[in-house]
Amino acid sequence: MLHGNAVIGQSGGPTAAINASLAGVIRGALAAECIDKIWGAFNGVEGMLSGRMCDLRAILSCEDELELLSHTPAAALGSCRRKLSASGEGEDYERLFKMFAENNIRYFFYIGGNDSMDTVAKVTSYAEKIGYKLRVMGVPKTIDNDVCGTDHTPGYGSAAKYIAASVQEILRDCAVYTVKAVTIVEIMGRDAGWLTAAAGLPRLRYGIAPDYIYLPERTFDLDSFTTDVMAALERRPNIVIAASEGLRLADGTYVGECAQSGACDAFGHRYLAGTAKVLEQAVKEKIGCKTRSVELNILQRCASHIASETDLREASMIGRAAVEFAISGETGKMMGFERVSDEPYRVAARCGDIKKIANLIRKMPDEFINADGNNVTDECLRYIEPLVMGEPKLAYEGGLPKHFIIPR
Amino acid sequence: MLHGNAVIGQSGGPTAAINASLAGVIRGALAAECIDKIWGAFNGVEGMLSGRMCDLRAILSCEDELELLSHTPAAALGSCRRKLSASGEGEDYERLFKMFAENNIRYFFYIGGNDSMDTVAKVTSYAEKIGYKLRVMGVPKTIDNDVCGTDHTPGYGSAAKYIAASVQEILRDCAVYTVKAVTIVEIMGRDAGWLTAAAGLPRLRYGIAPDYIYLPERTFDLDSFTTDVMAALERRPNIVIAASEGLRLADGTYVGECAQSGACDAFGHRYLAGTAKVLEQAVKEKIGCKTRSVELNILQRCASHIASETDLREASMIGRAAVEFAISGETGKMMGFERVSDEPYRVAARCGDIKKIANLIRKMPDEFINADGNNVTDECLRYIEPLVMGEPKLAYEGGLPKHFIIPR
Repeated sequence: MLHGNAVIGQSGGPTAAINASLAGVIRGALAAECIDKIWGAFNGVEGMLSGRMCDLRAILSCEDELELLSHTPAAALGSCRRKLSASGEGEDYERLFKMFAENNIRYFFYIGGNDSMDTVAKVTSYAEKIGYKLRVMGVPKTIDNDVCGTDHTPGYGSAAKYIAASVQEILRDCAVYTVKAVTIVEIMGRDAGWLTAAAGLPRLRYGIAPDYIYLPERTFDLDSFTTDVMAALERRPNIVIAASEGLRLADGTYVGECAQSGACDAFGHRYLAGTAKVLEQAVKEKIGCKTRSVELNILQRCASHIASETDLREASMIGRAAVEFAISGETGKMMGFERVSDEPYRVAARCGDIKKIANLIRKMPDEFINADGNNVTDECLRYIEPLVMGEPKLAYEGGLPKHFIIPR
Repeated sequence: MLHGNAVIGQSGGPTAAINASLAGVIRGALAAECIDKIWGAFNGVEGMLSGRMCDLRAILSCEDELELLSHTPAAALGSCRRKLSASGEGEDYERLFKMFAENNIRYFFYIGGNDSMDTVAKVTSYAEKIGYKLRVMGVPKTIDNDVCGTDHTPGYGSAAKYIAASVQEILRDCAVYTVKAVTIVEIMGRDAGWLTAAAGLPRLRYGIAPDYIYLPERTFDLDSFTTDVMAALERRPNIVIAASEGLRLADGTYVGECAQSGACDAFGHRYLAGTAKVLEQAVKEKIGCKTRSVELNILQRCASHIASETDLREASMIGRAAVEFAISGETGKMMGFERVSDEPYRVAARCGDIKKIANLIRKMPDEFINADGNNVTDECLRYIEPLVMGEPKLAYEGGLPKHFIIPR
């Protein structure tokens, strides 16, 4: 058994479940005899490189605090988008491993998205190269659900629940008037349609849903879109459309590419915005009825007030399992879920080789998308539904949810 | 005691509490011996004019159903924006009163905003003019809270809770990165800052809040705004700003006027959009850091999943009280709340002469706005807090809140 200290970092965009995973890793580490200090690094590898760390054993000692942390949105330790050098060597690696050695850090847990798993893979390789004994585990989180090697990602269920509940409310809202109107809801997901698909969820139980759901897995065609909208307006006055921010035309350009800045983030992703605005303009010009666009925006990733209890429970569960796998000897692995049963829904934690998973994108399978490419199938909704089940018992004060803040 | 039938209509924009008021009116009417049929008019006066009505006594007979109706967002009877002629006579009035006479309707309850109270005033005048015995009561609802003659309006508390909880989550989300960034949250409220003010609520209990809150009660100046933003960025990297959609420059033009369509609704209001987009562009040009705008959009008025229990309870209470006042002989009145005590917070239902109230706008008082005109005072937040208290026990199915649908 490898004895030593642990460091935990969070990275990438916020989710409603990333702190539940943090709570899970802490729970696992608190229960482990071979782990002494539990360091929390502020702002992911940035904090590890600059020595900005905190003693999580001292800060989060009781179950009530861990529970409140689980109900707190966005990375409680702060996040970063720092990318370690592609060559797998350089000053960052040297500084990082100097810090590990000085602090006898033998367990490295990194909670993040696709890009963070890339960091995990590189740290694993470097440890092997220099022969430093380190157990490196990646705990995935992303609302996008586009990570390979897992049935779904922690954070997706809560985002999907927020989207489905919000779209259900928008559907009720739009239904009150009798004048022709088109409402276009723009939903996150640069490369995959998982989040946008969740807009269809009210259909399963309540028989209402957006008239169309456009996904990045299918080429977007403006003429087909106009035809779709006109056909729906024949059926009823108020129509609602869910559109992914990641829709692309046949030539590969994003529908919303014209808007926002042309800036790229550290990983070379372009910031997108404005898909719904572009479609709104198109409807106004080609059909001429009242049209409105709604961007669900960053609340999709941080609306912990309507988090999925299943998501939070599972996020903690694989955080804890990451510690157990690491203690049992695993390293360079990403945690994931295997759906072992559909009815009743049950998942098991497993881990897979991170080098085979990092930097890949999991798109929606064909059987989740209808033949016309403008909606999702019931099979897709049955995949999503168990992930949004359950409501956490949130603590409120002054009418607002309480959050746990890690002091700096 | 006036015996006869009642008709209830809903009008104006949706809120999370407008159905709680409907449930309250139904509860009052069910308890009244002098009221026989309880008609629900689809789409407000439109349904009354075209005979599209339903028998609410048959549809909503038990308390469980009334409770579920209370938790359903947006007008369950549908809404309209139809304006009765300003002259106070014409075909609409004749048709309306012919329908009243044919159906022996003696009680008219109209649940709506400022514009709906205008309808109530006109119907009252016409009934008096032709000598038709009718008790007309207006039950206000508007998320905007800008109706005169009441401490606050039903619907405001739930919208304020949604805004405060969402802004709290956005504040947590924005705090995770260390790079300089400005996030601008656009909040509804064409003429008054009540909703935007709610963004400051997390300050009271949790010590976090947007750096600035810009309200339509104060002239907006782009240079002062830029100075404000630069000063805040000196203090910390991530700043969050709450901006009303109704901000105007010194010359009276709306900051967001350039965007969206130039169309007007039936009441001559211009559709606004894009205040945050305009400010986002200004920050990018003048300061050059990462900037993002978030429009809370229509979810502010329909997000019943985080409704205020106080709001729903009070909305039902004045709906019921409207019936009681009407039975006692009142007519041409609008229901309202009097805040009879601050600690403990207690309100009483009262009614006021609708002709003195309709078409007036209640703005935020000076003592609710700070001296610099770029934030709200604690006094303002203490006014808002009791209105957002309490969380309703929502029924969920398949991970989504259940709604009550009135069949058509």
